[in-house]
Amino acid sequence: MAAPAGCDRRLAGVSTARLETFADGVFAIAATLLILNVDTQIGEGTADLGKRLVEIWPSYIAYAVSFVTIGIIWSNHHTVMAQCGRVNRTFLMLNVFLLLTVAFLPFPTRLVAENLRDRSELEPAALAYGATMTVMSVCYLSLWLYAITDRRLLRDDSDRRTVSGITRSYLPGAPTYLTATLVALVSPLASVALFGAIALFYVIDSSFFGDEVIGPVP
Amino acid sequence: MAAPAGCDRRLAGVSTARLETFADGVFAIAATLLILNVDTQIGEGTADLGKRLVEIWPSYIAYAVSFVTIGIIWSNHHTVMAQCGRVNRTFLMLNVFLLLTVAFLPFPTRLVAENLRDRSELEPAALAYGATMTVMSVCYLSLWLYAITDRRLLRDDSDRRTVSGITRSYLPGAPTYLTATLVALVSPLASVALFGAIALFYVIDSSFFGDEVIGPVP
Amino acid sequence: MAAPAGCDRRLAGVSTARLETFADGVFAIAATLLILNVDTQIGEGTADLGKRLVEIWPSYIAYAVSFVTIGIIWSNHHTVMAQCGRVNRTFLMLNVFLLLTVAFLPFPTRLVAENLRDRSELEPAALAYGATMTVMSVCYLSLWLYAITDRRLLRDDSDRRTVSGITRSYLPGAPTYLTATLVALVSPLASVALFGAIALFYVIDSSFFGDEVIGPVP
Amino acid sequence: MAAPAGCDRRLAGVSTARLETFADGVFAIAATLLILNVDTQIGEGTADLGKRLVEIWPSYIAYAVSFVTIGIIWSNHHTVMAQCGRVNRTFLMLNVFLLLTVAFLPFPTRLVAENLRDRSELEPAALAYGATMTVMSVCYLSLWLYAITDRRLLRDDSDRRTVSGITRSYLPGAPTYLTATLVALVSPLASVALFGAIALFYVIDSSFFGDEVIGPVP
Repeated sequence: MAAPAGCDRRLAGVSTARLETFADGVFAIAATLLILNVDTQIGEGTADLGKRLVEIWPSYIAYAVSFVTIGIIWSNHHTVMAQCGRVNRTFLMLNVFLLLTVAFLPFPTRLVAENLRDRSELEPAALAYGATMTVMSVCYLSLWLYAITDRRLLRDDSDRRTVSGITRSYLPGAPTYLTATLVALVSPLASVALFGAIALFYVIDSSFFGDEVIGPVP
Repeated sequence: MAAPAGCDRRLAGVSTARLETFADGVFAIAATLLILNVDTQIGEGTADLGKRLVEIWPSYIAYAVSFVTIGIIWSNHHTVMAQCGRVNRTFLMLNVFLLLTVAFLPFPTRLVAENLRDRSELEPAALAYGATMTVMSVCYLSLWLYAITDRRLLRDDSDRRTVSGITRSYLPGAPTYLTATLVALVSPLASVALFGAIALFYVIDSSFFGDEVIGPVP
Repeated sequence: MAAPAGCDRRLAGVSTARLETFADGVFAIAATLLILNVDTQIGEGTADLGKRLVEIWPSYIAYAVSFVTIGIIWSNHHTVMAQCGRVNRTFLMLNVFLLLTVAFLPFPTRLVAENLRDRSELEPAALAYGATMTVMSVCYLSLWLYAITDRRLLRDDSDRRTVSGITRSYLPGAPTYLTATLVALVSPLASVALFGAIALFYVIDSSFFGDEVIGPVP
Repeated sequence: MAAPAGCDRRLAGVSTARLETFADGVFAIAATLLILNVDTQIGEGTADLGKRLVEIWPSYIAYAVSFVTIGIIWSNHHTVMAQCGRVNRTFLMLNVFLLLTVAFLPFPTRLVAENLRDRSELEPAALAYGATMTVMSVCYLSLWLYAITDRRLLRDDSDRRTVSGITRSYLPGAPTYLTATLVALVSPLASVALFGAIALFYVIDSSFFGDEVIGPVP
């Protein structure tokens, strides 16, 4: 379908808009459902409420790390879509697979939170969390590489340097998460600390170095 | 209401936009709620966590199949709405019925996942899943046939060949799901395998053959 | 703030768009959460799955009636917003109160579903459901009356006859639901049947008589 | 990236739109999930349903206060974004932190609701609620101050007086919530009453004094 002028361009753009609405919905729900894990934890203790609120500190950390991680994935999805001027059905399906892994995240998050104090079962929990994040990173990279191969879905005016900069920044994701996952076989606690550190790195990286303005500048 | 020019066209278009926002919301939530089923499953075993994580493999498959199925329905809804230039209240109601069946899907998904290893009660679970998918396919087809009858809600510039191509691709849905459902009366496991195969077929079909570009091409 | 021309009009319109996004989100989530009630019901029986799936029939009906009811409220919200060209903070707050009652609906829905077979406690359940719907209708009417008083938030080109037609169709909502609620004091079952009948009436009314086209006509 | 004219301005604006979609999603879900707390409460009593429905009155109040509080935060986010013409990644991250606190709210809301009748454990519940609201207010203020410093993200045509008016109205939030939180150390009940009063104040303030029209005026 050749690109028509004016109004039609806007109508055709609805497709990328709907992908974003669906994706943003999954991101928002997956992030918000994380609180149910904290809810479950508080119900289990028998001590008085004040003590239990302190005892479940791993739940708060797990909640924050996973929420921020989903926030970063959402923010990166934003960056990807800003470079894409069109979508096709393969791209939609690749997005569905990415979202499948994002919506899965509350599950291993709960496992890690539940086993962070009594660490006898932290290893499988950390492996489950890490495996989810590794698969997610692979889905994410596939999505991006599919979009940029032969500039398949890129906007006409998308800048080559910006595109290769994004590629460079996405490449280390999967190996980093895979490494952090494998660390769980030696020390589950070190593995979990690494997951937190990776999220923290991305937040700092985004906030201090990634301050390019998005949207019109006067 | 006759179509006014320019700006008013945009304002009037809000109606199709809101249908899409509501629908995308239901699609996104129904898909994301599926993880709660996996959550429930892990809590039930008494074995150590590593073993339980392996034992609940049917939950992962059920999660993936239903998530991808909802993703495909969402992607098809996208295709339908791209052909529609306007909506009326009957169309809105037909959409509400479709979404009612989509939001119902997490329930039979859980039933299938719970009964896939110990198959003594897989038959009613497979029947419930299949019945939901069959009714969903009927709702979907009704929606589409309502929109295209006398080109009732089609865009002026929607292509006759595209429209009949979509019709042809939607017609087999309900009979296929009904057949797979009835197979459960003979072999529930074969029925469940068919549900997975249908989802897989749609993913491959979308990704390899349905690569038409959606959105403007340079 | 006076209405600027062209581009700025679009930017200003963001406000009504955001109200719709938030509202559609609450509508979609409240509707989709209804399935959790069905989920809870199936878990309680001890009979085999096939029997339990049949026994919880009230859950399906309650699910369908509440889902369709939310669908109708969403569709009417659509009608209201199509007449409004602007919003103010009072209107936003009135919307928050309406959404508060919509998001409350899954709770009395579950109560009715749970008590529909063993009717010993159906009366308080029906009263809770009816009270929610009555308050919701009052919120809805307040919202509309606020918007139209002195044409406060109406679009310049909104038609007087359309507006008074909408008013006439919304006026009977609250008294109808109040009556159906009070019937529960005599016969809870008749009251519940009335709630179903009201939803059915609105569906038929929307589908057969309310077929005005929404959106541009060629 | 310099601001291009016409069409590109619209495309670039997608970024603020996506922030709003994600944020509105989290607001809508967090608000709607509050009903699950009421659901949990009704299940616990052993008295007949009518009595239990009356007994759990604190759940209704907690539900309403938190729902309205989220509604006000959403409405204020609306006000902030209306002043912002662009976003950057630091701003996105600040939003993620704000949303993290908003999505956390259903948890302390449940704690307060559960302990409002039997007040032996109301103190830690009130402290948890108040701490969440205080942190939320700080996140909110940080977000706003970041956007307006050197007019970093403000629209070109955003009015200096409007901006400083918004700043003045946001400054008291955190200290007010901190004070109400500390009151819990003396009287948890007074603290909870203050939380309700603050929400009520904002509703009245919004509805009666903040009636400036948002969106185009004829």
